[in-house]
Parts: sequence; C-alpha cells; structure tokens
Amino acid sequence: MPSSAPATMLDDATKPLFWGIDIGGTNIKIGLVDDAGKTLHFDHIPTQESEGPQSAVDRTAAFLAKIEQELGLSHEDVPVIGLGSPGSMDIPRGYLLDPPNLPHWWNFPIRDAFAKATGRPVAFINDANAAAYGEFWVGTGQRQDNMVLLTLGTGVGGGIVVADELVDGENSFGGECGHMIVDPSPTARLCVWGGGRGQLEAYASASAVVDRTRERLTAGGESSLSGLLGGSNSELSAKAVYLAAEDGDALALEIVDETAFWLGIGITTIIHMIDPGLVVLGGAMDFGGEASKVGQRFLDGIRKEFHARTFAHVAKGTKIGFASLGGDAGYLGAAGYARKAYRKRMQ
Amino acid sequence: MPSSAPATMLDDATKPLFWGIDIGGTNIKIGLVDDAGKTLHFDHIPTQESEGPQSAVDRTAAFLAKIEQELGLSHEDVPVIGLGSPGSMDIPRGYLLDPPNLPHWWNFPIRDAFAKATGRPVAFINDANAAAYGEFWVGTGQRQDNMVLLTLGTGVGGGIVVADELVDGENSFGGECGHMIVDPSPTARLCVWGGGRGQLEAYASASAVVDRTRERLTAGGESSLSGLLGGSNSELSAKAVYLAAEDGDALALEIVDETAFWLGIGITTIIHMIDPGLVVLGGAMDFGGEASKVGQRFLDGIRKEFHARTFAHVAKGTKIGFASLGGDAGYLGAAGYARKAYRKRMQ
Repeated sequence: MPSSAPATMLDDATKPLFWGIDIGGTNIKIGLVDDAGKTLHFDHIPTQESEGPQSAVDRTAAFLAKIEQELGLSHEDVPVIGLGSPGSMDIPRGYLLDPPNLPHWWNFPIRDAFAKATGRPVAFINDANAAAYGEFWVGTGQRQDNMVLLTLGTGVGGGIVVADELVDGENSFGGECGHMIVDPSPTARLCVWGGGRGQLEAYASASAVVDRTRERLTAGGESSLSGLLGGSNSELSAKAVYLAAEDGDALALEIVDETAFWLGIGITTIIHMIDPGLVVLGGAMDFGGEASKVGQRFLDGIRKEFHARTFAHVAKGTKIGFASLGGDAGYLGAAGYARKAYRKRMQ
Repeated sequence: MPSSAPATMLDDATKPLFWGIDIGGTNIKIGLVDDAGKTLHFDHIPTQESEGPQSAVDRTAAFLAKIEQELGLSHEDVPVIGLGSPGSMDIPRGYLLDPPNLPHWWNFPIRDAFAKATGRPVAFINDANAAAYGEFWVGTGQRQDNMVLLTLGTGVGGGIVVADELVDGENSFGGECGHMIVDPSPTARLCVWGGGRGQLEAYASASAVVDRTRERLTAGGESSLSGLLGGSNSELSAKAVYLAAEDGDALALEIVDETAFWLGIGITTIIHMIDPGLVVLGGAMDFGGEASKVGQRFLDGIRKEFHARTFAHVAKGTKIGFASLGGDAGYLGAAGYARKAYRKRMQ
C-alpha cells in the first residue's frame, strides 16, 4: 500500500491529478493519483456507516480540501473525482439503492452529494468494477484492450472491461460474475447472501471455501484443520485452508482443487462470452499467489478445466493470472475512471 | 424478406448506402441498405463452397458491380462493404481460420480479398455478431444501448452489443454464448459439434431439442411424435415438436419446458455478467413465436427461471423477447456495421 508522499513528489507528477475514493463498509480509501497512474498520496478515513452518508461525504470532502491545501493544489489541478461504491446502485441517476453493507445509506444521491461537497464532477462506478478498471489501468491488465477481474472474498465480485470501457449494464449490474449459474441442479449450493442457488460465489468465494471445508470436517474428514472445527470463521479461514494445503493436507488440497474446478467452469463461460484474452483473480483468497505451490496448483487447476472445455486458438490466446494491486485496485480504478471521464469531455 | 426494388426507390433513400453481405454454407445473402436501415435491394447467390473462396469473392463483386451499374451508383454512393462470415476467424488480420461449414475456405484472407475485388474498405465481423447488430440497429433492439442475441439453430450462436459496440473479443470469439457451461456434471450432454460437455447449445439448440425428443421417444415415451421416430431429423424436427406441443402433446410440452429451463439458466448468467436490459431469441426455433401459445409458454418459462434466480430491480429492468428480422438480420447487421465503420472514420 502506498504511503503519504511529501509535496516535492508533485514535481515529478504528470498532471492533471485525480482523486480516487473507494467506499467500504468499514473504511473509505482515498488516493491522489497522477495522470500516469502513480499514487502521490494515500490514506483512509473511517466510514462510520451508522452516522449516515452525508457525514461521510462531508468528512471526505474536508479531507480532500486539507490535502489540497497542504500540497497547494487547485480544483483545476484535480479536475474530477472518481468514486467507487458497493451496489446495488443506479449509475445514471447517481444513487445508491440498497447496498447490504451500508444499511443506513439506502436511496442516497451519492454522486451529486460528493459533487456538491467537493465542487467538482464525480465519476461514479461500482466498487468491483473500479477494482477491475484499476487492474486494467495500472495492474495485471496493463497493455490489454479487454480484461475480466474476479475478486474472491466474502462473495465473488467481478468487473468486465471491453475496449477500455467498463460494462456497467442497464441496471448498474454489469460484471456481477459471482452471480452466474455454475450448477443448475435443485440441490445446488445457496449463495452466501441467501439469494440464488448454484451461483459461482456459493462455490468459489472465501466464505464458500470455509463452508465446504467445515462440511467435510463435520462429516468426519481427516485433516490438520479438524482442531479448528469448533472455532469461528476467523480461525477456520480460507487462509487456514491454504496453509494446510501448503503443508500437504489432503482434505485441504481437495478443497483447493474443487474451488479451481468451479472457477474453471465459470471462467470458461466468461471467456466464451467476452473472450477478454485475460482473466485476473483478485481478493484475499489467492492461496498464496503465484509464489506458492498451492497458488500455482490453484491456477493450473483452473486452466486445466478451461482448456478441456474450449477451443485450441482460444486456449492459446487467453491468460489466467492473479491481480497485482491488492486492496489499492479500487481507489486506483476510481481515479482512472475519473481520468477517463475527464479525457472524454476534452474530446 | 425484402424483394428487389426499382431504381426509383433510390429517390427516398438516405445516403450513403452500404452493402451487407452474409456468407453461409449454401448461399451468400447480399443487401443494399440505406443509412436509415432500409433495404433497397436484396438477393442471394450460391456459395458453391467447394469451388473455394476466391470464386465466391469474384462472383459477389461482379454482382455488386452489376447492381450498382443498373442503379447508377458510384463507389462514393456505397463507400463501405459490410461482411459477416462464420467463424473461426481472426478479425484484426481479416482471415477465416477453420469454419466447419466452409472446409475449402480455411486460412483465407477474406477481408482483403473482398476489399481488392470491390475496390472499397470492408468491415469484417462474425455472422452471429452481424445478426445481433442487425437486430440492435433495425430490429427488436432498436432504441437500446445494449443487447444480447441468442440464435437457436443447429447450434446456439450469439452476439453481444455493449454501448453500440459488438464484443468481438481478443480471439474473435466474443459472444459465443452457445459455448457457455450450463451443466458442470461429468455426464452432461455433449455439444453438437462433438466438442465440450454441458454447453448451452447441447441443451437449447434445435438439434438438441430433436435429440432430447428422440431419446424420450426411444425410452418409450407416449407422444403423437412416435410415428416420426424412424424418420430423419427433417421429419422429427424442432418444428414438429412445436406443432405437437401446440396440439397439447404432453411429451412435446415437456421438451419445450425443459428447453426454457436451460435457456433460463444460461440467460441468467448472461444478464448477471452483461446486464444488457434486453435478451433477444432468434433463429428458426421460436416455437411459433409470440403469436403462438407454445411460443408464449416458452418465453414465460425462460422468464420464470430467470426471475427465480435474479434480483428484483434486475428482473424489472430486463426484457426477454423474440427477434424480428428473421434471416435478414445477418446482412442488415453487416451493412449496419459498415455504416458504423464509415462514421468512425468521419470523426
């Protein structure tokens, strides 16, 4: 994560600059990013969700003003604000609808509230789409025209970039790849949000990995993880499964392989629809990433399933890999989309 | 299907005009289309596939020249040629790769061959994507920003339009929705092309409908269709299943409902990824269309499955319906994409 930068960094910055704001249930991440995608300043403030959205808008605007004053920046130096937020949302109207993790913020005109408080236009996008645009602009997707990001966390989020544009959709629901159906059977697993059955996130999210492990242990499966069965999900976590798998635990390895199978099914569908050339996996659950044995086995399992189900020239022309920006992808993507909006107006 | 038009029709035409060419295994459809999407002239010539592609290119170019001479049109009046062709293909290079229904045309630089023979730039797209763009420009998708077309025929083709652009993909494989995975089980049905298992077209194409009916009859199912069991697929066809269903045949109705179920699964995934606001079903297998009891039951079955698996605001903001251009969608979409290419160059 980039740290705060002294004012002298501005000398090397490519102007104009853009604010990227990434709203989460606990914190609001705020980055000042230059035209080349370099972060000049980063910090976060608490969301304080229960105080309602206007408080967070005002505190964010005050924070931006303070930093701008310290760095001697005018509104012209930072002409557009990028804002990523959890859905559901109505992007054309600039409203939050009913985001599950912001219960006190429902039906709030967040885009215009931020525009009024900051005195500048706001580019408003979904947070998972913002992360996808971040990876596309300055992460694993650099030098690509198209890319799909899947973020594996509590749920499975996603974002689709086609020809440098995010797929927002008609109902601001574009890129919700976690809600694709991978298992049509009436006994398929239920989505973690209690919604639809057989959706990808019921199989491939970090929560689903824990649930599936817990079920296997409860059914008597032998594993080094058995001791955690009585504990909370913070003990029996996707990370604990990864660590056990790295140590060669057979049950944990089975869970990793099954997760790769389900992602292989879902990613095959994504590729046969979008043909993005690159699918990137982000979020906490990377099983150690490319540097680890298990992370490599995870990627190989996904690729194997995809290759068995696709055509030779599509397999050859498609990469599947891990994201590279971690938790910074959201504010970077929000800033990148602000830059895109700014450039469009200039045309 | 529009018929040939006298030269006087040119008086009402909105210029410039565009040729739309839709290459099929048997015929090449050729339409002269004006800037407003009106067909001024339509005809087809035989593909004569086994003679190889250059013969077809030359015969098509001669046909265009003949009509242009008859109508007194210059190259400036018809500045760009739109060309839709079956894949696999390499759109940036302008090559056909190995289209299964054009075995003598493999690895042919079709775009440049047409450009040379016609003396004009050629906008080259996939035939299913061309049909999608046709429905988007002048068919069911008019006044939309986004749309997905599924064509139910021998296979299941597809095309995705996002913000007025076709999703071609990195490997010219974008929009191949028939190859999405709807059933992950190891015993899932095989794709009609003998490829992947569990893909949508193994359940929802006209061929799949016939195969599933044949299996049910062979297993002793009672139906008015039993008499056709010994016959060819031209007798026991998707249309025969529709006609039996319209007469209330229980087995035929089950097949219709099952097909709707599988399309409901696939379309839910499409909508959760693209959120197009409109999904259009084209191709021969419309079960009589909206005018028929069975066509309505088919649409209702698809919608029911989608609504059970999606969110209220997405269900409300999404339409699912039948295509309106029939076999004309391909050449119209090719002409529409030529128009789009022409307008882009003007910017």
